[in-house]
Amino acid sequence: MNSEEIESIKTPVFGNKWILRWESDREMKEKLMREANLPMPAPISDPKDINKMVIVKRQGAAGGKGYFMAANHEEYNTKRNQLISEGVLSNDETLYIQEYAAGVLAYLQFFYSPLKEELEFFGVDQRHESDIEGLARIPAEQQLKLTKIPSFNVIGNSPLVLRESLLEQVYEMGENFVEASKRMVSPGMNGPFCIEGVYDENAQFKSFEFSARIVAGSNIYMDGSPYYSLLFKIATESNQLDKITT
Amino acid sequence: MNSEEIESIKTPVFGNKWILRWESDREMKEKLMREANLPMPAPISDPKDINKMVIVKRQGAAGGKGYFMAANHEEYNTKRNQLISEGVLSNDETLYIQEYAAGVLAYLQFFYSPLKEELEFFGVDQRHESDIEGLARIPAEQQLKLTKIPSFNVIGNSPLVLRESLLEQVYEMGENFVEASKRMVSPGMNGPFCIEGVYDENAQFKSFEFSARIVAGSNIYMDGSPYYSLLFKIATESNQLDKITT
Amino acid sequence: MNSEEIESIKTPVFGNKWILRWESDREMKEKLMREANLPMPAPISDPKDINKMVIVKRQGAAGGKGYFMAANHEEYNTKRNQLISEGVLSNDETLYIQEYAAGVLAYLQFFYSPLKEELEFFGVDQRHESDIEGLARIPAEQQLKLTKIPSFNVIGNSPLVLRESLLEQVYEMGENFVEASKRMVSPGMNGPFCIEGVYDENAQFKSFEFSARIVAGSNIYMDGSPYYSLLFKIATESNQLDKITT
Repeated sequence: MNSEEIESIKTPVFGNKWILRWESDREMKEKLMREANLPMPAPISDPKDINKMVIVKRQGAAGGKGYFMAANHEEYNTKRNQLISEGVLSNDETLYIQEYAAGVLAYLQFFYSPLKEELEFFGVDQRHESDIEGLARIPAEQQLKLTKIPSFNVIGNSPLVLRESLLEQVYEMGENFVEASKRMVSPGMNGPFCIEGVYDENAQFKSFEFSARIVAGSNIYMDGSPYYSLLFKIATESNQLDKITT
Repeated sequence: MNSEEIESIKTPVFGNKWILRWESDREMKEKLMREANLPMPAPISDPKDINKMVIVKRQGAAGGKGYFMAANHEEYNTKRNQLISEGVLSNDETLYIQEYAAGVLAYLQFFYSPLKEELEFFGVDQRHESDIEGLARIPAEQQLKLTKIPSFNVIGNSPLVLRESLLEQVYEMGENFVEASKRMVSPGMNGPFCIEGVYDENAQFKSFEFSARIVAGSNIYMDGSPYYSLLFKIATESNQLDKITT
Repeated sequence: MNSEEIESIKTPVFGNKWILRWESDREMKEKLMREANLPMPAPISDPKDINKMVIVKRQGAAGGKGYFMAANHEEYNTKRNQLISEGVLSNDETLYIQEYAAGVLAYLQFFYSPLKEELEFFGVDQRHESDIEGLARIPAEQQLKLTKIPSFNVIGNSPLVLRESLLEQVYEMGENFVEASKRMVSPGMNGPFCIEGVYDENAQFKSFEFSARIVAGSNIYMDGSPYYSLLFKIATESNQLDKITT
């Protein structure tokens, strides 16, 4: 379904169906992230301006297939042309170029309840993408002989917990995103959402995406997550749920 | 114990003790996987025919120690000779050569109950092998100076959940394996088993192995897995087990 | 707080506050690990003696920021100078040089109860460090163009289970550490601690650190770990706790 079709659904949808358009359009996405004051890798509007490592992405939630990396304009053109000739990209496809942020991947899962006006940090996951992940197991010597362009096709997710000192900023980012959504896309970011990014060598988070809906990574935590446990399970097991709920 | 010894055990063994021979012999393994219609990396019968990246494996469940990668016949010979001189491989050892499948590793854990005639998809794990995994943390520049041949010695396992759209094929592969085992190795694949492989950049699974028994990766899920939870835990906790069982 | 400040705390502290000095001082740390007979990567006292891959570490629990790898004396000097000029290291900082151990990272979490005189193996985690982890997703060709020195800043942790055959040695190492601590730092290693290292291609563990306190990796196991489950949960669920406790 495209955005128009989603928005025309008459059955009430849990969450905010209007915000999905902001998720799938790169320019709107960037605008909302900027409004939420999320630290972002710089977007690059003209391929000629590529002067450091970038990642080139497609519009919409294509699942990462066809994304590629480039270090300069020439490499951008070569790879784009190769992917077009392989039928992965189409000739007139608009691509989105973003400074490449390297480090530890972290997909921050939240739930905002407009009933309680409460933001819950639910858990963290890492995405596993093919075949970029497979590179890690191919020695450099062999990698240099490969001609295939690695792709970022999402295959699965695995759990992560964060260094405690990072948690304060996590809540801050979640709250900022909720507030920005209230201002920009009424009635705001209700329900589950995910802020997606990477921690650099200074433990600074850079967010390259968000998902304004439940994400696959939450499947890991079918029985609850470490962070969720802190909120609810201890209370349940000790029969003190009434002390933390109202 | 070798296959003869296992098969001569008089005490009843849970599962199918005859199928373990099919697991440990590379040719029989390949035959059963083909019968189950599992997508497989191509085997290469003559080292002279290596013209792309391959992985070279030993017979039996050696745990990955002594496995190596090669891109051509010359590299195969050089590495094999080095490993023989290091005492890792023996001179007359039969090696099994398989096209190298790159991407996201996924070990699919199943349980088939012949009593209920039901296949359960229990969980997924990733294997961690040494020292191939360590390569990921060594910069390419440094890697190029190393002379040691990386090995694939299994050390541990970590959890993974799969992108939802991949699950249908997972069940299909599990069912095909159960059916093929019924035809080939009476009474078939009863109890736990594992289909082991990798998802490529098109999210296509290639299976390079199976284990016809409980695998170490299930240790992750001592208290249940995300997929298992969907089957049983929700019902248990809400006292509705009778609604999903008969 | 520095060691003097911690040791001067008048409020009773759970565990052994004296051992924290042994954790933060590299020489004392090495001494205690040697007393515990832990297999260790060789320390290198003079940078001139670097003749294989080493990792250069800072004193104290700096969280890995500023750690770097080097293959020889020249590379050591170049990188050290670069990090000093970037303000990451200070000019007069004492650095600790250790042979680089490659393989599968494993942080072994223990709990020793002096009341029961019982050692519990609680769980295992892997640390995720930035931006060294990010290297794995950058093709070798691109890596070779980078000039930035990768860092080891700890960002988070993820779960792992170990191949069963490795468990015996895990308990042995934990017990040795408890015994050594009793001899060296009265009253010994009470409460949670962590032995941190890497499994090489022969599945031999090399320990490069310990933490004489609860570690962040235990956050993964807020609701229990696979190993913990074997000890307690099964008994709880089946109302048989009295059979395993006294």
